[in-house]
Amino acid sequence: MAFKSDIEIARAANKKPIQQIGDGLGIPSEHLLPYGHDKAKVGQEFIDSVQERPNGKLILVTAVNPTPAGEGKTTTTVGLGDGLNAIGKKAMICIREASLGPNFGMKGGAAGGGRAQVVPMEEMNLHFTGDFHAITSAHSLLSAMIDNHIYWGNEQEIDLRRVQWRRVVDMNDRALRQVTLSLGGVANGFPREGGFDITVASEVMAILCLARNLKDLEERLGAMIVAYRRDRSPVYCRDIKAEGAMTVLLKDAMQPNLVQTLENNPAFVHGGPFANIAHGCNSVIATTTALKLADYVVTEAGFGADLGAEKFMNIKCRKAGLAPSAVVVVATVRAMKMNGGVAKTDLGAENVEAVTKGCANLGRHIENVKSFGVPVVVAVNHFVTDTDAEVAAIRDYVSGHGAEAVVSRHWELGSEGSTELARKVAALADADSASFAPIYPDEMPLFEKIETIAKRIYRADEVLADQKIRDQLRLWEEQGYGDLPVCMAKTQYSFTTDPTRRGAPTGFGVPVREVRLSAGAGFIVVVCGEIMTMPGLPKVPAAETIRLNEEGLIEGLF
Amino acid sequence: MAFKSDIEIARAANKKPIQQIGDGLGIPSEHLLPYGHDKAKVGQEFIDSVQERPNGKLILVTAVNPTPAGEGKTTTTVGLGDGLNAIGKKAMICIREASLGPNFGMKGGAAGGGRAQVVPMEEMNLHFTGDFHAITSAHSLLSAMIDNHIYWGNEQEIDLRRVQWRRVVDMNDRALRQVTLSLGGVANGFPREGGFDITVASEVMAILCLARNLKDLEERLGAMIVAYRRDRSPVYCRDIKAEGAMTVLLKDAMQPNLVQTLENNPAFVHGGPFANIAHGCNSVIATTTALKLADYVVTEAGFGADLGAEKFMNIKCRKAGLAPSAVVVVATVRAMKMNGGVAKTDLGAENVEAVTKGCANLGRHIENVKSFGVPVVVAVNHFVTDTDAEVAAIRDYVSGHGAEAVVSRHWELGSEGSTELARKVAALADADSASFAPIYPDEMPLFEKIETIAKRIYRADEVLADQKIRDQLRLWEEQGYGDLPVCMAKTQYSFTTDPTRRGAPTGFGVPVREVRLSAGAGFIVVVCGEIMTMPGLPKVPAAETIRLNEEGLIEGLF
Repeated sequence: MAFKSDIEIARAANKKPIQQIGDGLGIPSEHLLPYGHDKAKVGQEFIDSVQERPNGKLILVTAVNPTPAGEGKTTTTVGLGDGLNAIGKKAMICIREASLGPNFGMKGGAAGGGRAQVVPMEEMNLHFTGDFHAITSAHSLLSAMIDNHIYWGNEQEIDLRRVQWRRVVDMNDRALRQVTLSLGGVANGFPREGGFDITVASEVMAILCLARNLKDLEERLGAMIVAYRRDRSPVYCRDIKAEGAMTVLLKDAMQPNLVQTLENNPAFVHGGPFANIAHGCNSVIATTTALKLADYVVTEAGFGADLGAEKFMNIKCRKAGLAPSAVVVVATVRAMKMNGGVAKTDLGAENVEAVTKGCANLGRHIENVKSFGVPVVVAVNHFVTDTDAEVAAIRDYVSGHGAEAVVSRHWELGSEGSTELARKVAALADADSASFAPIYPDEMPLFEKIETIAKRIYRADEVLADQKIRDQLRLWEEQGYGDLPVCMAKTQYSFTTDPTRRGAPTGFGVPVREVRLSAGAGFIVVVCGEIMTMPGLPKVPAAETIRLNEEGLIEGLF
Repeated sequence: MAFKSDIEIARAANKKPIQQIGDGLGIPSEHLLPYGHDKAKVGQEFIDSVQERPNGKLILVTAVNPTPAGEGKTTTTVGLGDGLNAIGKKAMICIREASLGPNFGMKGGAAGGGRAQVVPMEEMNLHFTGDFHAITSAHSLLSAMIDNHIYWGNEQEIDLRRVQWRRVVDMNDRALRQVTLSLGGVANGFPREGGFDITVASEVMAILCLARNLKDLEERLGAMIVAYRRDRSPVYCRDIKAEGAMTVLLKDAMQPNLVQTLENNPAFVHGGPFANIAHGCNSVIATTTALKLADYVVTEAGFGADLGAEKFMNIKCRKAGLAPSAVVVVATVRAMKMNGGVAKTDLGAENVEAVTKGCANLGRHIENVKSFGVPVVVAVNHFVTDTDAEVAAIRDYVSGHGAEAVVSRHWELGSEGSTELARKVAALADADSASFAPIYPDEMPLFEKIETIAKRIYRADEVLADQKIRDQLRLWEEQGYGDLPVCMAKTQYSFTTDPTRRGAPTGFGVPVREVRLSAGAGFIVVVCGEIMTMPGLPKVPAAETIRLNEEGLIEGLF
């Protein structure tokens, strides 16, 4: 049987005009700003007008630790959304936007896959509605204003050696990781070291995704720490007076983007912060707006549940006052096999024993999610090569761990393949059995928050951090930042900080290399391992073969 | 009498839905891609479909040498377009897009002024339809790919000291003018010197504005010289294999943007290359498309006629096969006074003698434009402080120089104030008296092309260039670039290279400091004086007071 590629399916989609998708949500056309015929932004006035409505139910899709075999978290999010609509529920999807730069290195990411996709796929992987460009612009304005402030007399007495604010560009450009700025003489300023991150790593991105509205956005931007003085006191963005103009640059980017699934169901695709140095979820404004427009909102978080779901609960839900009604943990036979020790090259052969062994990883994620007070369903994202015995092994394991596993074939069949999952999820959400709470209180000391996550989620024995890091955390507590949540930055491939330790490892410590304060976004980043904030291009970048063909279609991007 | 500000007038505009403006041009709604309700891009398929239609008449609006008093070239372009429509002609306007970065330094530029504006003004001064962001992305991709090529083995043997390709950002950021790249060790590449220009200075911008279609765009991008080898042989963009992916990034940016005037007449606002190191006109694709949709197309060129009109004729028209039917030279009483030696502070007082003296500047521009075989009308852009005697002095001077001066009050009155100008221009264009030709042939040696412009347009005695520059020009001729036009980069304030020499100076030489090859855009840049390709911010940037007010309106940008 021959399967079409994701891009072939996406191009053949029978899209409805976006105004019609908006109509279905009750958004009047004057409040829906079109970007072409298949994308639109929802106006702030309309968003303001629906605030008194009751909220729909929030469903988080998360996953086991990712493996090279692929889990299909976004695909399941889309498939579940379509499934809920297919069984007569009013459901919306909320996912993240793609970063432009990385698509020119490796072949680009679709939004979902197979029969469970969001479209227009090509534009979502290119400029889309310009949100990331607006973030780059706002970030770059502040960058320019900081050096301009120094140039014209440095009234704030910024210590040139302690400028924290790095520049950004939405491109994989390793040559910019570390640079010397302001060379060339008096007219160009005071030479200093600096560097560039990729746009999605900008604190502006994290703020845009956590801000409740434009006023909150402006306040958070103003609260960002951009540098320190010689006395170590912080210089804020508001000291440079940049937050107002940055807000102007971001005013449209703050509005959620409406698109549709292959089955013409509505989806917000908005925001895309890193899932390591930031919280890795789509925007709060998209999620909260969707909850006013639909009875069920299906959203996802980055990486596996140890990182993505934990941050979704402890950061996004805490800060935005959200409470999920149910969580779907996506697992695949292939990922269970790899967690059970099978190499990628051996995935083709049936191996029930390895599946069962690998389920230890899944089991721990189920327990973890439940510890937030939210009921769990496991979605087995079905691959055509999965055998019945392998699938049965997952089912058995899951039912022995107080949850239910549902096989879902949305990739192959669209909503026809996901109705069972949709029914289970809807029933679980409707039962109102959730009693959500973050796993640590605001007032817990920062180091204890790190320990709580490391011990209760990762199952580590201890957190290893030298005195300098502990002192830094105490200093921030003294400065009034002690009530912030912590944002863990570690490998997504393991519960530990060692990417090769799959499954459900025990007997390890979590070493903290560095802590960073994102005072505007409102969290403390805890770096446990190498974190790359500016990727490079591979030896043969995808860009070399990306082109428009004779029919005007894009080749090589997917 | 109290006048409203430009932004107050623009906000009060009674805009029509952009689909309706498109309807008026016969563009079916499926070929008009909306960006919000008041901006749209015209689809390539539609553009292809109108190619067999006859062309309308092309009218260029240019001006005397600019002075701090302001000439209102864009305002006159808009006013004339509205005037033509008001007298029953089918007319369109084609102007350039604004650069984002500079708006955060000094207060931003409107598109026209008073009752002669293009709207939506705020969005046109912010992200608009994302064209400049796309150019920044395409440029940045090539930047990253060049250093990536060097990193992975440098198969093309690029000489690290001779990388010509600078990076860009659309922000005034002097700290980036000169930098050291790829610091920080092996993983970050080979350290080298580099720097950033502002996006409008990118050769990609010039190419986008000269390309006839996407295929032509891709070829021109591929032909850009990005570096030289140790043997001085050029490394092209196509050697780095970036042109295909860059074209994909630019495919939407290539489509003209449709907006409207305050009087609901159609305007293309598309492209915005520098008027010094590039040719300073809106895109060829916008102009050629407009000529298929309207009977009269009013467009403008950057700076005064010595730079803008000269390049419009010798570069844009030559390369795109365009021929203007008439030229409007904009003059003001205030600019004539300043060219006649009056200081800005003394402009308030009537001074007929200074006006007459300053008209020597205008007279030379009239002669110059006529030397291209195109008839001229002078538009006296009326200021409410101008006296009748001063206006009469310009009229008298112009009629003594074989042209006619028409007073136009579009700023104050909109099309009601510009109908006389519109009638004169339409009559002149309809008379078909133009026999346009560039003032030098393709096959003229490069140095002679420079001399032709310097002597015939600027009225210089000679061109001063040392042997190195003459040798470089000869080398390019040997390499096959001898048939390119030259793109003069000099001060816009004077016919000479000394900005303080107003009026119609004689007895001077034009020193050439440097020559650069823009092989993709297709011209040789001749640098005569300081050219700033990355502006800085002032001590108190406009950004410090730009903000969204309580009603959600932008303050401080205008």
